[in-house]
Amino acid sequence: MTGARTLHDSGSEQIETLLRAALEKHPPAVAGLGEMMRYSLEGGGKRVRPRLVLMVAGMLGAGQDAMPVVKQLTAAIEIVHSYSLVHDDLPSMDDDRYRRGRLSCHARFGEAEAVLTGDALLNLAMETLFAACREAAPGRREAALAAAAEMARAAGAGGMVAGQILDIHGRPDIDVEDLKRLQRLKTGALIRASCLAPALFLEAAPEVLEALGDYAAALGLGFQIRDDILDATGDAAVLGKSTGKDARDRKASFVTVLGLEAARRELAAEVRAAETACDRLLACGLDPSELRAFVHELAARDH
Amino acid sequence: MTGARTLHDSGSEQIETLLRAALEKHPPAVAGLGEMMRYSLEGGGKRVRPRLVLMVAGMLGAGQDAMPVVKQLTAAIEIVHSYSLVHDDLPSMDDDRYRRGRLSCHARFGEAEAVLTGDALLNLAMETLFAACREAAPGRREAALAAAAEMARAAGAGGMVAGQILDIHGRPDIDVEDLKRLQRLKTGALIRASCLAPALFLEAAPEVLEALGDYAAALGLGFQIRDDILDATGDAAVLGKSTGKDARDRKASFVTVLGLEAARRELAAEVRAAETACDRLLACGLDPSELRAFVHELAARDH
Repeated sequence: MTGARTLHDSGSEQIETLLRAALEKHPPAVAGLGEMMRYSLEGGGKRVRPRLVLMVAGMLGAGQDAMPVVKQLTAAIEIVHSYSLVHDDLPSMDDDRYRRGRLSCHARFGEAEAVLTGDALLNLAMETLFAACREAAPGRREAALAAAAEMARAAGAGGMVAGQILDIHGRPDIDVEDLKRLQRLKTGALIRASCLAPALFLEAAPEVLEALGDYAAALGLGFQIRDDILDATGDAAVLGKSTGKDARDRKASFVTVLGLEAARRELAAEVRAAETACDRLLACGLDPSELRAFVHELAARDH
Repeated sequence: MTGARTLHDSGSEQIETLLRAALEKHPPAVAGLGEMMRYSLEGGGKRVRPRLVLMVAGMLGAGQDAMPVVKQLTAAIEIVHSYSLVHDDLPSMDDDRYRRGRLSCHARFGEAEAVLTGDALLNLAMETLFAACREAAPGRREAALAAAAEMARAAGAGGMVAGQILDIHGRPDIDVEDLKRLQRLKTGALIRASCLAPALFLEAAPEVLEALGDYAAALGLGFQIRDDILDATGDAAVLGKSTGKDARDRKASFVTVLGLEAARRELAAEVRAAETACDRLLACGLDPSELRAFVHELAARDH
């Protein structure tokens, strides 16, 4: 576990640096906007998506020449995630005044400002992806574009935003299959893109892409089920956000739909599915030990 | 004038087709989201930005091989503009219930839905730009990426969104130079990108890019001044939106800051500046007659 802990810490520090670098590379024309964007990018979080990008790139042996693109893919996916949190927290959406233990963007800066900060962050993510493609070596530009397009698709109406629409229109009596579909879009699409985009850029073999897709699907659902279990059973102080929200807001979660015990069994099944996908990566001659450790870390987390 | 009128009409029809094509190419995973996106893209408008893309590409002699990329640049810039209108109209922003003579997106579908529809449209614009770059011939891919990056930069915190931040924080006692800076970002950046992106893609000479930049700057300011004059003097029925808003909302406009007569003089000066830029394009061996007619059309419009 020492290795995993070190990975987590050094990865996190590197990710903060990459986020700052993306913002500095595409500077806002108004200082106040930059401050709001920085505020929304900081504040920690588990950095699940960028850590996946770095782990997959590491597993696939990304060389020094590939790293400038990989780093920008890493920053871009977390910037997309950050924008989605800023908009999710808005009064017209989830109406959350707190995020990661401090004021959410609109509670801190105002509602119109939070709408625009989210817009600016989504745009920054895309500018970062275009910069990555422009900086790719000519022979790698097509692969960089494939990676960037995968991230862009996952972020939009074909992925995350569609999941958010299903979520705001969700009824508490949704069945588990519809809930899975919702979560595959809302959180699954970006997690899948985090695994696939670096592999597309590094031109991984089809069977590697397929195993990574299956790993991401299992990790994404497992991550969400764990989130729902923590909402029902967790400690608000440790989580840095309020708990019991799903039941209170009559929002469907894996716990409200399945009950706590079945949700735990479902989580265990997803962990096993992720393990199986890791076995397939191993059979491809790759070392999936970081990905394997990560799924256990996320399944066992208390925040 | 018959030629210009035909250009306008056929151009408009082509633009509606391109917008529909972009949405069909990147289909939303949830039908309701597609409906809201379509609603926000339809409803006319002057289509200033996509018409500029097509006019510049035409002037530069874009061939059949270049048109797939040009068409996607055309759609992308209008999709960015459409998303910005959806978010601008939100209750926390300008709080407009009507747009182009019908209900604005949030008035029609709800506020959370409008936030997400705007997000999905911005994302769609970027997906369209990535598709354009991927479909560019390998030898033109670098130029396509330069064009796409120019549009992305203009849309974000280095352009339009920064202008919107200045706008919501604007005081009615702003001076004319600050108002120009605000407008150069808020409306000018996208108009500039509409002129520069096709020229970057078609690898125009530096002096052509410079003249186009100056044309766009003059057109953008002239367009905004005309908007402000129409807000003060126009017919709400013809405009399809309420008038006298700037004074009522104590919002700075060229009319509230300069007075009506000085605003008209400023408009005439911008028209002359655009004409001068057209003269320089002519001296480069190009035919800027459409761009010239366009600036007069926009300066004289009654809606």
